[in-house]
Amino acid sequence: MQSSPLLENLIESLRCLPGVGPKSAQRMAYHLLQRNRSGGMELARSLTAAMSQIGHCQHCRTFTEEDSCNICNNPRRQSSGLLCVVEQPSDIQAIEQTGQFSGRYFVLMGHLSPLDGIGPKEIGLDLLHKRLQNEKFTEVILATNPTVEGDATANYIAELCVEQGIKVSRIAHGIPVGGELEMVDGTTLTHSFLGRREIHY
Amino acid sequence: MQSSPLLENLIESLRCLPGVGPKSAQRMAYHLLQRNRSGGMELARSLTAAMSQIGHCQHCRTFTEEDSCNICNNPRRQSSGLLCVVEQPSDIQAIEQTGQFSGRYFVLMGHLSPLDGIGPKEIGLDLLHKRLQNEKFTEVILATNPTVEGDATANYIAELCVEQGIKVSRIAHGIPVGGELEMVDGTTLTHSFLGRREIHY
Repeated sequence: MQSSPLLENLIESLRCLPGVGPKSAQRMAYHLLQRNRSGGMELARSLTAAMSQIGHCQHCRTFTEEDSCNICNNPRRQSSGLLCVVEQPSDIQAIEQTGQFSGRYFVLMGHLSPLDGIGPKEIGLDLLHKRLQNEKFTEVILATNPTVEGDATANYIAELCVEQGIKVSRIAHGIPVGGELEMVDGTTLTHSFLGRREIHY
Repeated sequence: MQSSPLLENLIESLRCLPGVGPKSAQRMAYHLLQRNRSGGMELARSLTAAMSQIGHCQHCRTFTEEDSCNICNNPRRQSSGLLCVVEQPSDIQAIEQTGQFSGRYFVLMGHLSPLDGIGPKEIGLDLLHKRLQNEKFTEVILATNPTVEGDATANYIAELCVEQGIKVSRIAHGIPVGGELEMVDGTTLTHSFLGRREIHY
């Protein structure tokens, strides 16, 4: 028997967050009520604004509250001629943190998965196709995940690029830096042998 | 560079939750945006209602949006004559789940800690004192945590009860059920020897 229906509601609602079970939800609710009510109010405002106003960029499909995102609007990135195709908006975040890529992105928001009814249209490949035709890309880099579905999606997009005569590449798969050969699985090791590079002196 | 200031705000705000770092906050934000916007809106509403409307019960100081909580209002509990003193509202939850206690509660919202400026008044002992004088309790059960501060707080309250001629008890400390003697720390084992009970046939 909880002493307060509003508190029960809050605990129940917090469980919509990934990785939050009944115990964590209870801990979060008590923490906010006891120590950080202003933080809780601020979170409520941020949630309302984000959930109601954030849509997708009309060029790259990432999350943004504008028609077109910061990255697509950046003239320096527009002139680079590079397009990186990723599965999720969070992948952009990860790539941006490396500081190695200065082109634009295209976010599939998933991968091809015919059994789940996710075909080329559902992951925005019609929009990508149009962009490949209308904009002048010098190279398309496929950075989908190294899974069966990610590879299949990459192959499909590679064909689209070849049709348009655009250079296309796939990010390298191999042993993670700092990893040990002994601990790496066979498929990764195979990839790292197939993807070996000659050393030039 | 995030593609959206609203998304950045949301990720920053989510970090007010206990145990949520930058990576979890990002995962939560993307999860809500991608898969559960209605859940996010519901969470925002629950947060606003809880943060602005939940106060403290005027009798037991637990969280409630009413003047007086469900437990304090329950006539069956009022007639039991038992009062259990706990440190946190979440302790009530834990005790209620055992189904072993049918009296009322008093929530200190902390424990005595003179070095942090938390004296008897800060943990509501003036209110407790008045209740001990005005209501007819047959027994006060001290269920503060078995820490130095919790024990000190329990002793302080025990004196108040003795002054009023009210029977007072402390919950038992000892080896957890299902635990192994070998793995239990010395202080707990000492407690469990001091608190031993004679077996009657």
